[in-house]
Amino acid sequence: MLVSTRNPLNIGAAARAMSNFGFSGLRVVNPYEPAFREARSAVGASALLEAAEHYTSVADAVADCALVVGTTAVRHRELQHPLHRLEFGARLIRKRLGSGRVALLFGSEKVGLPNEDLSHCHWLMRIPTREQNISMNLGQAVAICLYEVIRQTKVTGRAEKLPRAAAGEVERITEMLLDALRTSGYLSRRRVADAEQRIRRMLRRLNLPARDAELWMGMLRQILWKLRRDEAARGQPPQTRKV
Amino acid sequence: MLVSTRNPLNIGAAARAMSNFGFSGLRVVNPYEPAFREARSAVGASALLEAAEHYTSVADAVADCALVVGTTAVRHRELQHPLHRLEFGARLIRKRLGSGRVALLFGSEKVGLPNEDLSHCHWLMRIPTREQNISMNLGQAVAICLYEVIRQTKVTGRAEKLPRAAAGEVERITEMLLDALRTSGYLSRRRVADAEQRIRRMLRRLNLPARDAELWMGMLRQILWKLRRDEAARGQPPQTRKV
Repeated sequence: MLVSTRNPLNIGAAARAMSNFGFSGLRVVNPYEPAFREARSAVGASALLEAAEHYTSVADAVADCALVVGTTAVRHRELQHPLHRLEFGARLIRKRLGSGRVALLFGSEKVGLPNEDLSHCHWLMRIPTREQNISMNLGQAVAICLYEVIRQTKVTGRAEKLPRAAAGEVERITEMLLDALRTSGYLSRRRVADAEQRIRRMLRRLNLPARDAELWMGMLRQILWKLRRDEAARGQPPQTRKV
Repeated sequence: MLVSTRNPLNIGAAARAMSNFGFSGLRVVNPYEPAFREARSAVGASALLEAAEHYTSVADAVADCALVVGTTAVRHRELQHPLHRLEFGARLIRKRLGSGRVALLFGSEKVGLPNEDLSHCHWLMRIPTREQNISMNLGQAVAICLYEVIRQTKVTGRAEKLPRAAAGEVERITEMLLDALRTSGYLSRRRVADAEQRIRRMLRRLNLPARDAELWMGMLRQILWKLRRDEAARGQPPQTRKV
């Protein structure tokens, strides 16, 4: 529910966020610009905007609602309203959505909701912005509040872990890499035993995804082939022993 | 980080949300309207907008970042990127914020992030909109993502993970590997553009530990040197263009 909104773009943006998150029943109370239905920025939400209900008082607009929640940026009002952080307020709203209509009120861009309108609210909710800049864009504030209402309470999604390459594959890759490093002279410039172990450990640290093992072997095979062919063409003895 | 944003209002809105939630370091890559700094709608965020850094490629823009996250509205890309719901992705970001710079990429209003840009990302994140309207306003999407990152969570940080290589280092390694693959003829046997992106993504999947970056570069440098020296000795024209 948008009260005394000045910029039609914000009404459009609110409608778009409602559409994104599956809410219906946009109500506007005394918008500054009665032609708000032409708001651009309502991509995918023109039907919602079309069906918006127009009221001249908050009292009328919330009349059929079982819960009325106001939004505010301010932390300390003189008002005797409970003030909840969004995370908690949205949870209360979610619990009530099944049993009746819930109104979520947003005031004008400049001054928010006046006390008269707040007096219709059961409690207030605030977005946890930082103290230094509490003033949010209206369209963004609406989007965040609606997002929080539909947000999953429990974060379930696990890091879907990629299956990892088997040790045997990693070892084959290690041997091919060592071979390329020998042929290129990289290893002969170092104390070999220790360097090989370092490289072996390093490849283990990569925790190579299983599906990439083939690709790595293919790349190394080609690089090795090229290193050896060029060396043979130059008639040099290979600087490497065959693995 | 905003890539190819068309509407300066959206850049302003992104800056405002960053200010609301205490983020700094706005970067823009090839905005459609170079005069974006004049964006209105950036109430309270003019300093942030003023200091925005302008890049001409995603590679440059993410070079000093240890984690690069792309945003997408689409559920099923052909891409082989892990895709997380915002609630979970934001938690992963939160865990990493202490130990290095995190880039959060938003694509253009029309088409989002192209595959080339996505190939610089470690994983992707999506806002849980409903299927019927997945297209969000850019400024609102930015606001919701940042809100979710700072949102209170009961889940406390886990043990420190190994610091990861910065994107710039990983990209240098990528270029050296691609160079070796070109010189060895590996890439010429494949459709080049697509193969390069696959290899770039594969290297991002490795999540290379920071301390191993030098070692990888050293190994590749030597292999490259050898490949080129042999080729020069054979008097062949190199099969590769200089990167």
